[in-house]
Amino acid sequence: MIRVGTGVDVHAFDEGSPLRLAGLDWPGEIGLSGHSDGDAACHAIVDALLSAAGLGDIGSLVGVDEPGTAGAPSTGFVLLALDRLAQHGWRPINVSVQLVCNRPRFAPRRAEAEGVLTALLGAPVSVGATTSDGLGFTGRGEGVAAIATALVEHV
Amino acid sequence: MIRVGTGVDVHAFDEGSPLRLAGLDWPGEIGLSGHSDGDAACHAIVDALLSAAGLGDIGSLVGVDEPGTAGAPSTGFVLLALDRLAQHGWRPINVSVQLVCNRPRFAPRRAEAEGVLTALLGAPVSVGATTSDGLGFTGRGEGVAAIATALVEHV
Amino acid sequence: MIRVGTGVDVHAFDEGSPLRLAGLDWPGEIGLSGHSDGDAACHAIVDALLSAAGLGDIGSLVGVDEPGTAGAPSTGFVLLALDRLAQHGWRPINVSVQLVCNRPRFAPRRAEAEGVLTALLGAPVSVGATTSDGLGFTGRGEGVAAIATALVEHV
Repeated sequence: MIRVGTGVDVHAFDEGSPLRLAGLDWPGEIGLSGHSDGDAACHAIVDALLSAAGLGDIGSLVGVDEPGTAGAPSTGFVLLALDRLAQHGWRPINVSVQLVCNRPRFAPRRAEAEGVLTALLGAPVSVGATTSDGLGFTGRGEGVAAIATALVEHV
Repeated sequence: MIRVGTGVDVHAFDEGSPLRLAGLDWPGEIGLSGHSDGDAACHAIVDALLSAAGLGDIGSLVGVDEPGTAGAPSTGFVLLALDRLAQHGWRPINVSVQLVCNRPRFAPRRAEAEGVLTALLGAPVSVGATTSDGLGFTGRGEGVAAIATALVEHV
Repeated sequence: MIRVGTGVDVHAFDEGSPLRLAGLDWPGEIGLSGHSDGDAACHAIVDALLSAAGLGDIGSLVGVDEPGTAGAPSTGFVLLALDRLAQHGWRPINVSVQLVCNRPRFAPRRAEAEGVLTALLGAPVSVGATTSDGLGFTGRGEGVAAIATALVEHV
């Protein structure tokens, strides 16, 4: 039994915080807003996984207003999602993530991000990045958009 | 034989009409523009299903200029799409929908929407909702964007 | 072994160039910017295929700064992606593309575009088009957005 899921997340740049994106720290880059670390890639992955398995969304997984989640690493949310999937007999087959943003320059660290996220999920995770050719909020450098698509199977 | 399909739809808020979204009525909320009821979630589902099966898109299914479709419930378009799929031997495996919007507040009625759409399709439908963190047209509260991904199989 | 992949691409309209979109020439239409021919549909297909197979992204396939790719037809990039997939034992099952734009009017040539891209990939390619109801950069007619989702299998 196989299912597909999709997740989208957007976070605005926030000068006052360090950047966490696609499971990596990006020293020297402007961070993303959000109650957690604002890692839009991880949030999109969580929503894609939960949606594929029919197990809610990130808002049902973690109380975004809970004090303990302020600045929390979003890789922890991915682990919570995987736990929920496993409790219901689901596991990820693979996840594909597309980032749309001007910064950071992703290509030099794409393989590193894919390695971290693949290890986290125990299944292949691909991450690509593109710009929106100067158009829209990503083109104006206001934030990062992430779209993730996941395949999961019931075991 | 399994296939994947994706569909996107956007509708602008329109003060003069009631809101229909994800198969539900939302009393007290501002509606969406469109020749039909403007249910962006249902329209994205229709396009994802038809695209997966290689059977055209929503524009080839319903004449948007036909008088009979003015204000028509978009759940009817989903049924038309399912009919077309069935006529060619296809059925949905599951559909995942991601809404991006400030309003309505979706979480309290997520399970209800998933129930209505799952019954309509005869296959699991997941619906999640997120904001775009104040960015772009969804962040300015101008409208609703919906992205749907569908798996279908030939029977 | 089956995998899913997603790709997004955006190009701005550029008065000075002819339009290539979804593998077709569009005489009389305003073209898209980009070092190649700016065919956002083909670029999204390339990223979806490569991401599904875990084989990088379009930036790792073609040096966008290489002189030989200026104005190059993006159908050639699709063939390069398919070659890379084949070298690693992958082939496409199907690809679904959603265009978001005001122009060109896509419906009259949808079947033609699907025919060209299906022949190119040797697997079904569906292409739909929608507007964003006047919202955002696509609604202002500034450019074209394309989202592709691909299924691939290891043979």
